[in-house]
Amino acid sequence: MLRLGIVGLGRGAVLTAPALAAHPRIEIVAGCDPGADARAGFAAQMKARSYADLETLLCDPEIDAVYIASPHESHAAHTVAAARAGKHVLVEKPMAVTLANAARMAEAARAAGTVLMVGPSHGYDAPVALAADLIADGTAGAAHMIHAFAYTDFLYRPRRPAELLRAEGGGVVLSQGSHQVDVVRRLAGSRVKTVRAWVGDWDAARRADGAFTALLTFENGAAAGLVYSGYARYDSDARAGWAGELGMPKTPGTQARTRAALAAGNEGAAKTARGFAAGAEAVRAPYHERLGSVIACCANADLELTPEGVVVHGDAGPELRMAPLPPVRRYGVADAFARAVLDGERPLFDGAWGLETLAVLHALLKSAVEGRDISPADLIDAERSMP
Amino acid sequence: MLRLGIVGLGRGAVLTAPALAAHPRIEIVAGCDPGADARAGFAAQMKARSYADLETLLCDPEIDAVYIASPHESHAAHTVAAARAGKHVLVEKPMAVTLANAARMAEAARAAGTVLMVGPSHGYDAPVALAADLIADGTAGAAHMIHAFAYTDFLYRPRRPAELLRAEGGGVVLSQGSHQVDVVRRLAGSRVKTVRAWVGDWDAARRADGAFTALLTFENGAAAGLVYSGYARYDSDARAGWAGELGMPKTPGTQARTRAALAAGNEGAAKTARGFAAGAEAVRAPYHERLGSVIACCANADLELTPEGVVVHGDAGPELRMAPLPPVRRYGVADAFARAVLDGERPLFDGAWGLETLAVLHALLKSAVEGRDISPADLIDAERSMP
Ligand SMILES: NC(=O)c1ccc[n+]([C@@H]2O[C@H](COP(=O)([O-])OP(=O)(O)OC[C@H]3O[C@@H](n4cnc5c(N)ncnc54)[C@H](O)[C@@H]3O)[C@@H](O)[C@H]2O)c1
Ligand SMILES: NC(=O)c1ccc[n+]([C@@H]2O[C@H](COP(=O)([O-])OP(=O)(O)OC[C@H]3O[C@@H](n4cnc5c(N)ncnc54)[C@H](O)[C@@H]3O)[C@@H](O)[C@H]2O)c1
Repeated sequence: MLRLGIVGLGRGAVLTAPALAAHPRIEIVAGCDPGADARAGFAAQMKARSYADLETLLCDPEIDAVYIASPHESHAAHTVAAARAGKHVLVEKPMAVTLANAARMAEAARAAGTVLMVGPSHGYDAPVALAADLIADGTAGAAHMIHAFAYTDFLYRPRRPAELLRAEGGGVVLSQGSHQVDVVRRLAGSRVKTVRAWVGDWDAARRADGAFTALLTFENGAAAGLVYSGYARYDSDARAGWAGELGMPKTPGTQARTRAALAAGNEGAAKTARGFAAGAEAVRAPYHERLGSVIACCANADLELTPEGVVVHGDAGPELRMAPLPPVRRYGVADAFARAVLDGERPLFDGAWGLETLAVLHALLKSAVEGRDISPADLIDAERSMP
Repeated sequence: MLRLGIVGLGRGAVLTAPALAAHPRIEIVAGCDPGADARAGFAAQMKARSYADLETLLCDPEIDAVYIASPHESHAAHTVAAARAGKHVLVEKPMAVTLANAARMAEAARAAGTVLMVGPSHGYDAPVALAADLIADGTAGAAHMIHAFAYTDFLYRPRRPAELLRAEGGGVVLSQGSHQVDVVRRLAGSRVKTVRAWVGDWDAARRADGAFTALLTFENGAAAGLVYSGYARYDSDARAGWAGELGMPKTPGTQARTRAALAAGNEGAAKTARGFAAGAEAVRAPYHERLGSVIACCANADLELTPEGVVVHGDAGPELRMAPLPPVRRYGVADAFARAVLDGERPLFDGAWGLETLAVLHALLKSAVEGRDISPADLIDAERSMP
């Protein structure tokens, strides 16, 4: 059994904890959060111990591993502390805010001989995994041009102040770009060579990196075009039969109302209410999780990712390949973590993967500022050569 | 009355001639084409004279203007000859293959004092015009991020050899990119500052520039992300209720069958059969013409272009603004040309516009080869400074 502690009992934890709890080889034994309401909600719903801080949780002798869902800017300190205490780590995306910290995290896990896995991101979604399989087994063949786009209300959902500050990893690039980059990296099956990007910050009443569009080239010759708007009233889930990001049916028009809902409430309270302070989410979703639209033009077919799986558009016409629904939403993440820790399987989304995705996102930000191609590998090298 | 001659009686002419013929201020008096079948078909259907070559057509004293729908590589010579003969010109997109030739064309029209208009391209589509109006009148406000994507079977429709050769303007970049670039330029309302792009050529059995993805930045700070595949079995018209590019209902699955149809027939004959040699197309389309999907994220709303018009996604939810259907498909192009010639109105898509769109497309090709940002203005300047 993998005995787990959860660090940060907010929105991310609410979404992932049920899958971890449902896994037969994982037992959630404790959680920690400075917020008393979050602790109380967690303890009641998860029937587990709760602590006010990480240090105390790491002293709990029954904990083998931690799932870190604290704010971006705490991922590094929490991961390093956990690894030093000999705990395996599943850390939320983005892995860290800075590349220096991501490198420290990977190094700490290496030195401790512990597992470091990053996620969940939409790179884990079952339709993405199925598409990667169809590419690898030759059904579709190599992906040449990948296109991922999402129109969401990310910027107007209740946020902590840091979630809008670039210096703390806020805005859509690190938070949401990590999903799209994980998806296109998995489908391309190659390292990102160059990033050229544009970032938009166009609401004077809510300054933040709210949108981006980027062109990625891969070492194997493929390319990806990304478009993300967190300002959107237009909803890319309209193209997916109104199946929402979390795999639940969505009411048309939801995104048009997000700004009004935000203006009408207390943002801080509303943000907290989306975590364990309020209650856990339903876990058996009728569709797969999914972020926006993804189309991969491959050698023998175009792959269109859908809430059910993948439509293979080949010479015989479109054919829907269903991706089996997990027993519980995000079960695949819990299972990958259990297998990494208990069976020694190397996770796909390990520390090296997370570092590279973060480097792509920093290349995206830098390209938008400098107006030129940026190589993620160069950013990692520059980081390494720092004293 | 504008008395018109048509140069090149192939596919392009078949699509546009009916609108020119239907305009009350335009009379089609003659056409020319080296192909006897094309001439016979044209003469019978348009009830007009026909000639075997341009020189003879330009000697017809009843012709005031010409619509040039000959192959790309002939646009320049034909336009310059027509302007020198004092004829106004509507020339098909792309304006020319090279920037040098496009500049010569613009100069010839300027020297002759004749009208030079480029098109039709999808930049003329009524939903595009309506979206540009909604941006300009403040309903949507400034366009910050524009996204245009299309998945078509362009590469596998019957083609002349030149249509697949980059040196003759073949492939999807000049032929199809001119549509997307005209659309996003019109919506951005600003000049393109930089282009970073990737071009795909991945079918060894049919070498050509078959796909591209590009990031454009504009002088006013906006950006556009473009994605085009001419290899597609996946059909972007599926997202538009199966309204096809020409505004006609489309049978699902059409694109999956294009490769088989091409392999089964004689490509040269099949290409010719799409021109006047066979017959003119229906002209009263139930939807607007449209290429793929276009979404413009603007200050106050997102605009989604559809076969009916524009969906304005604002804070009050989505609202469809219908664009009035023209009496005849492409009537707007005919009308703009008539007004330019007869009333002296300056056309939006004039020689200067066409030259800039072509410069954007050459920047796209060059960026894909050199792997860096290219400025279209620099390409035009470099051309001007040539001896
Ligand atoms: N993968 C996903 O679908 C998903 C969804 C939401 C959030 N996330 C990620 O989860 C992380 C948290 O975001 P969130 O939206 O849940 O924020 P949140 O504010 O809802 O939750 C963060 C929680 O961490 C707690 N916290 C702060 N400092 C702490 C500390 N030192 N020790 C322990 N707990 C601490 C806060 O009190 C809060 O309850 C982010 O990195 C975010 O990217 C991922
Ligand atoms: N705007 C549109 O929707 C659209 C659609 C199709 C084609 N086009 C454009 O139209 C142009 C022609 O393409 P097409 O697909 O019609 O090709 P096509 O081969 O069907 O037609 C070209 C015609 O020009 C004739 N021609 C060749 N040399 C000539 C000459 N010296 N003088 C007169 N005629 C000559 C050919 O015999 C042929 O009939 C291209 O520039 C293309 O981009 C535009």
